[in-house]
Amino acid sequence: MAALTPPENPESDPRVRAVFDDIRATRGTDFINNIWHYLAADPGLLERTWAEIKAVMATPSSLDPLTKELIYLAVSVVNNCEYCVHSHTAQARAKGMTPQQHGEFLQIVALAAKTNVLSNALQLPVDDVFRVEKSGG
Amino acid sequence: MAALTPPENPESDPRVRAVFDDIRATRGTDFINNIWHYLAADPGLLERTWAEIKAVMATPSSLDPLTKELIYLAVSVVNNCEYCVHSHTAQARAKGMTPQQHGEFLQIVALAAKTNVLSNALQLPVDDVFRVEKSGG
Amino acid sequence: MAALTPPENPESDPRVRAVFDDIRATRGTDFINNIWHYLAADPGLLERTWAEIKAVMATPSSLDPLTKELIYLAVSVVNNCEYCVHSHTAQARAKGMTPQQHGEFLQIVALAAKTNVLSNALQLPVDDVFRVEKSGG
Amino acid sequence: MAALTPPENPESDPRVRAVFDDIRATRGTDFINNIWHYLAADPGLLERTWAEIKAVMATPSSLDPLTKELIYLAVSVVNNCEYCVHSHTAQARAKGMTPQQHGEFLQIVALAAKTNVLSNALQLPVDDVFRVEKSGG
Amino acid sequence: MAALTPPENPESDPRVRAVFDDIRATRGTDFINNIWHYLAADPGLLERTWAEIKAVMATPSSLDPLTKELIYLAVSVVNNCEYCVHSHTAQARAKGMTPQQHGEFLQIVALAAKTNVLSNALQLPVDDVFRVEKSGG
Amino acid sequence: MAALTPPENPESDPRVRAVFDDIRATRGTDFINNIWHYLAADPGLLERTWAEIKAVMATPSSLDPLTKELIYLAVSVVNNCEYCVHSHTAQARAKGMTPQQHGEFLQIVALAAKTNVLSNALQLPVDDVFRVEKSGG
Repeated sequence: MAALTPPENPESDPRVRAVFDDIRATRGTDFINNIWHYLAADPGLLERTWAEIKAVMATPSSLDPLTKELIYLAVSVVNNCEYCVHSHTAQARAKGMTPQQHGEFLQIVALAAKTNVLSNALQLPVDDVFRVEKSGG
Repeated sequence: MAALTPPENPESDPRVRAVFDDIRATRGTDFINNIWHYLAADPGLLERTWAEIKAVMATPSSLDPLTKELIYLAVSVVNNCEYCVHSHTAQARAKGMTPQQHGEFLQIVALAAKTNVLSNALQLPVDDVFRVEKSGG
Repeated sequence: MAALTPPENPESDPRVRAVFDDIRATRGTDFINNIWHYLAADPGLLERTWAEIKAVMATPSSLDPLTKELIYLAVSVVNNCEYCVHSHTAQARAKGMTPQQHGEFLQIVALAAKTNVLSNALQLPVDDVFRVEKSGG
Repeated sequence: MAALTPPENPESDPRVRAVFDDIRATRGTDFINNIWHYLAADPGLLERTWAEIKAVMATPSSLDPLTKELIYLAVSVVNNCEYCVHSHTAQARAKGMTPQQHGEFLQIVALAAKTNVLSNALQLPVDDVFRVEKSGG
Repeated sequence: MAALTPPENPESDPRVRAVFDDIRATRGTDFINNIWHYLAADPGLLERTWAEIKAVMATPSSLDPLTKELIYLAVSVVNNCEYCVHSHTAQARAKGMTPQQHGEFLQIVALAAKTNVLSNALQLPVDDVFRVEKSGG
Repeated sequence: MAALTPPENPESDPRVRAVFDDIRATRGTDFINNIWHYLAADPGLLERTWAEIKAVMATPSSLDPLTKELIYLAVSVVNNCEYCVHSHTAQARAKGMTPQQHGEFLQIVALAAKTNVLSNALQLPVDDVFRVEKSGG
């Protein structure tokens, strides 16, 4: 159940159709997942969100695709976004994540959450050596 | 300012000394950053936390060291752990993160936070195709 | 499924009955939504929670009702409270939120989440000009 | 630095004076910590916040004072409220928290944060046996 | 202290200069606050972030400017973004927020945080009447 | 639905069998709840997670078992971990939490969330008296 009723025939709107066509072409599949169906209720928001996802996640860059996906998944886990955890775990698998790598990913996010809590509970002072700006220009 | 006064001469405790020695040996540096000085107030917690950090982050595994560091940093950013953001940004640089990669990391965590909020605000239903368990055994 | 079994006949308790009567009178409807049925397990908590909701949200004040509802919804989205996102999206609609305003609300919370993450990832220093206390008494 | 300039002579307002007097009497000390000085900018908010703190935290109840303080501190740590972590760590010490108990508290909040992340990353289904409502009326 | 050293002469880069000029023109002031100085380290990220802020926050729309600012501030408070809380409290004041409205804003975000926690602690089931999608197309 | 397919016959792996046997012996029940079935996909992670839970939560210590469980539950509520809220509410009941204590727990976590938000919204400066490190060695 969502908090919004998505449009029934989203592609009857040419702006939505253009985005959906680009999603299909970029991903090489006819499948359009739910977030795009719901964002279609606001074509401007749909266009900008897809443009940003495409530019950041579907364009070759200085980080490899699986690393990018795991960073995205880590954020989604901490924010406890159910939809995002499912969709980005699926995408990480599609980009080659092995069960062993998934296990390591889980260990890292769990360990980070743990030391984050320790650091915040102790309100640790930052070491001078980490203060890059001081040593910078 | 921290919420705990760290021990003045932590290495007078042999358990603390052993952990600090292992940190120095593992990292190849004499520098011991603050979190270990404060955790030294509880030698058992110090030992277990270092053992876990060493096993997960300082041992070769199926994910490369920079990817692991960026996953750790992503969690720390979302939890807004000031100490962790500084220390793990420094460690990511030490493991080779370029300014361009830092910029891409920032874009990914910002974009993920954005789509997490959109998904949660819409309470999006998860697509059946992402439900791996259904298609599993 | 909830983590608590709500009382079967909550209004048999006169304290609960009084709160439910006031909810119905204040809202002009016979409908009592789930949170009140569950809080009825602790009449004191029920009374105080409703008194606070009534005073803050159902009393004319210096902010208009839709603005107040959108602030409430923004908090609920970031805390990813499923129940609250649904109930306060419904209430925002009841208070006149148009689909266009909903779209703009989504854009704002998504953008804020994004720049929050950028600011926290960079641990930005606060500009002196924003430090109102310095210029104060 | 705060985001609000607190009133210079808060006790010149009789409503603020009455709350401050009650804080001093309840706690048996002349010291008024910062949150009350800042909330004094809005006497109504000051009155309600103190009344709630007094009723929940400073009144004998079915949970002992230190347990209550540690629950409060756990929430504050996860929300990373700097002010609250400091003030409630101080209050837990004032209520008898030993260094050993502080160490155990840290272990529990760190472990909980870790398994929370694992559970959310796996989107674990809730066991039927935990569904109390099913077995209820 | 930030986790990044900002460029010393950011406006020597024509892309940065163009963004800074647009910020000055849009806001009618020569002042450029810190976030833009730091984002200048990555001109592409600077351009996209400013373009989005300008489109969403500095363009007349179906929500009034103060309501938009308060939604932004509510998100920033829950994410505990220090920089954002200061900058957006300042902007809310610049857009006409009175001390009374600030007090009401504080009450609403505090109350929402409270009922969010109650709802999540009870894992409340969503009322059917809030399930708009069911009654939709 | 989970984001991982758990192994069908987990106890065919002797490492998993050993952990499950220890869970049953420690808890005095044949029931193994879901988190262990899913973590069984990674025996090392299963072993370490159970070892930590057993050491921290199932070993007599300086905090009583119910207090420990309520601290764990408080963290889980704020992180909005559905699985953890259900399982640790059940465990708190098993350790003797009365309905009255549950009501007080709810009040405390709700009040803490509220004052956390107020403190963060005001970015309150920490009182010198809370700065233990200053007065320490």
